[in-house]
Amino acid sequence: MPSTSRVEAFPVNTPAASQIFTTVLSHGPLTRLEAARRAGLSPAAVTKAVRPLLEAGYLLEDANDEARPALGRPANLVRVDGGRALFIGLKVTGDEIIGVLADLCCRIRVARRVPLRGREPGQVLTVAAELVQELLTEADGFGVRVQGLGIAVSGDVDRAEGTVRYSPFLEWRDVLLAELATMTCGLPTTVDNDVRALTVAEQWFGDGVGLSDFALVTVGAGIGCGLVVHGRVVAGAHGVAGEIGHVTVDPAGPPCHCGNRGCVEAIAADPAIVAQVREVTGSEVADIAEAIELAHRGDAGARAVYAKAGEAIGRGIATVANLLGPARVLISGEGLAAYDLFAEQIRDAFTAAAFGSAARCDVHTRPLPFEEWARGAAATAIQSFITADPN
Amino acid sequence: MPSTSRVEAFPVNTPAASQIFTTVLSHGPLTRLEAARRAGLSPAAVTKAVRPLLEAGYLLEDANDEARPALGRPANLVRVDGGRALFIGLKVTGDEIIGVLADLCCRIRVARRVPLRGREPGQVLTVAAELVQELLTEADGFGVRVQGLGIAVSGDVDRAEGTVRYSPFLEWRDVLLAELATMTCGLPTTVDNDVRALTVAEQWFGDGVGLSDFALVTVGAGIGCGLVVHGRVVAGAHGVAGEIGHVTVDPAGPPCHCGNRGCVEAIAADPAIVAQVREVTGSEVADIAEAIELAHRGDAGARAVYAKAGEAIGRGIATVANLLGPARVLISGEGLAAYDLFAEQIRDAFTAAAFGSAARCDVHTRPLPFEEWARGAAATAIQSFITADPN
Repeated sequence: MPSTSRVEAFPVNTPAASQIFTTVLSHGPLTRLEAARRAGLSPAAVTKAVRPLLEAGYLLEDANDEARPALGRPANLVRVDGGRALFIGLKVTGDEIIGVLADLCCRIRVARRVPLRGREPGQVLTVAAELVQELLTEADGFGVRVQGLGIAVSGDVDRAEGTVRYSPFLEWRDVLLAELATMTCGLPTTVDNDVRALTVAEQWFGDGVGLSDFALVTVGAGIGCGLVVHGRVVAGAHGVAGEIGHVTVDPAGPPCHCGNRGCVEAIAADPAIVAQVREVTGSEVADIAEAIELAHRGDAGARAVYAKAGEAIGRGIATVANLLGPARVLISGEGLAAYDLFAEQIRDAFTAAAFGSAARCDVHTRPLPFEEWARGAAATAIQSFITADPN
Repeated sequence: MPSTSRVEAFPVNTPAASQIFTTVLSHGPLTRLEAARRAGLSPAAVTKAVRPLLEAGYLLEDANDEARPALGRPANLVRVDGGRALFIGLKVTGDEIIGVLADLCCRIRVARRVPLRGREPGQVLTVAAELVQELLTEADGFGVRVQGLGIAVSGDVDRAEGTVRYSPFLEWRDVLLAELATMTCGLPTTVDNDVRALTVAEQWFGDGVGLSDFALVTVGAGIGCGLVVHGRVVAGAHGVAGEIGHVTVDPAGPPCHCGNRGCVEAIAADPAIVAQVREVTGSEVADIAEAIELAHRGDAGARAVYAKAGEAIGRGIATVANLLGPARVLISGEGLAAYDLFAEQIRDAFTAAAFGSAARCDVHTRPLPFEEWARGAAATAIQSFITADPN
């Protein structure tokens, strides 16, 4: 059995050092003074914190030619060396595993997808281990160690425990995935819900950088939502949070798999759109791509279905804004392929249902590559590596 | 003009000391060891933190006879001396000001209510200053200083700025209330939204103690909600948060003052209930008390109105639970007077609409005294006193 002994410890052992590193990671390059200001620490604390990180090569310090003052020493810029460490992120769906090799700045270096041969935990772990091995071989080409593995799964996932409590797509209950993957793949493993993992990637490396309160709404096969409140991703006391897909839009609407009627997901997720386009147009569209095509050809029925979907998503986002007042809501996911078909309705429904100054929330789209979910998993591995308690 | 010079500084000047004091305040009496464990600090840090607080009389240390070990020194218990300081809390409604004198443990010592003579800021401040003066005279009887004033107002309130941005009941816009009240009343003043102030009281002194994530839902003239996420009250990036009253229950429902239809508030707040009882029963009930009386007498129409109100509140709570996954939801407010009329419907609608393990959230009622809102204001004053930056 592989061990995790190839992994080195991150040379940070104080909250201040961890804070400085994450500040430079998300906002860098920065002068030491600016890093101190943003982290709310003294320049002396920054000097103490960066020394071991510079020595170990996680931080680099460059002369800043642009900011060279007329007199005195130039203010050097501190930045993270993204190439100093690699991480693997896996997204497990019901059919396949998507895997990426990402650097310390969460830039994708290699991406792969492999089909599953079955959904039993053992079958999934075998495929995952093969994919990890392949990515580790790729990593050797970069001459840099892989320091951690992140796995993203939809459903009820307890990150702290490393357990998938319930995954409807995989039909898993209470699978100790982090422990099993650590043993099978030989890497310290972080397991998280897929939408929350994607939210971490946006918080540390994307459009959520610098915001203490934002939401990421994903549209596609399902309608999900990751929430950052007071600078941290909301996980929920019982594993459920961000279920914007089950905000009720219309109690007389179509039935939802959750047992209620008229949830956002029952109106605006891909399967709901396909079903409604079939019903409204009588056209036997095979999948969401055909539904989009029909709407793009100008079919009034298909376009009306998309308009209703947009209205449902807009109302869902307004509910999030009215309850939490985020500074920004990002809309992402594969459903953005149809964005021109419902963008206006999302905007109008949001504006109508947002209460008072909640309407000032910045709502915009955030197209992400198809490997986005696996990249989110890599982001959780980076987060675990940096913030791990060294004791 | 009175000055605030009579106020003394709280003898805490480090985050650790502030944390230890609030831990003992909310959870005490505690042994030093237990306080250290709960605050995540070393026993040495606790010893250093409590010394000035014991010297200034804010903390007391007693022999703990019950926990006396067979051998060795008994483990003393540290507790807050609630009588060491007093605070004034005011709740301003459209008609009156409710005021309380509360001790450092937020126990009400004196309560008063006085009618307003007008809603202009100047008129409200004059009545507030008279009430504060009356409560300061009462405080003299306790021989203890009043250390701060809290004012709670419904609407969009920026606590950090001390500004009432918009209050529909008072018809105020952008009133610098904290600054004006500090000048008029001679006490350091904290201004907050009334529901958030009540949430602070529950977080520090009530049923939210020890919970990092909970919600407080208030039912009555309006339907409000205070949210605590990651241990802090949610204020919203633009001043709006916790607007459970404007969660849509039925897009075909009755019109709401916010411009939409079928909001929780348009179905379940007192004015909506009175209007619906009149419409359904044909009985010209004058106010909510008469509506409740009619329902209690068994009128089927009035009871059906309450059943629908309960369903709307239950759905609103489920939306909060699905998005945030709080450990607990407390239901309070003057609307609890009718709780027997809709408790079952709240419970049933919540259970039906809660997604997966979000249904495990502990939902229960929390009857509070009529001065609850003013006590919430006092809690914000206590919070400001303890956590104020001494520099």
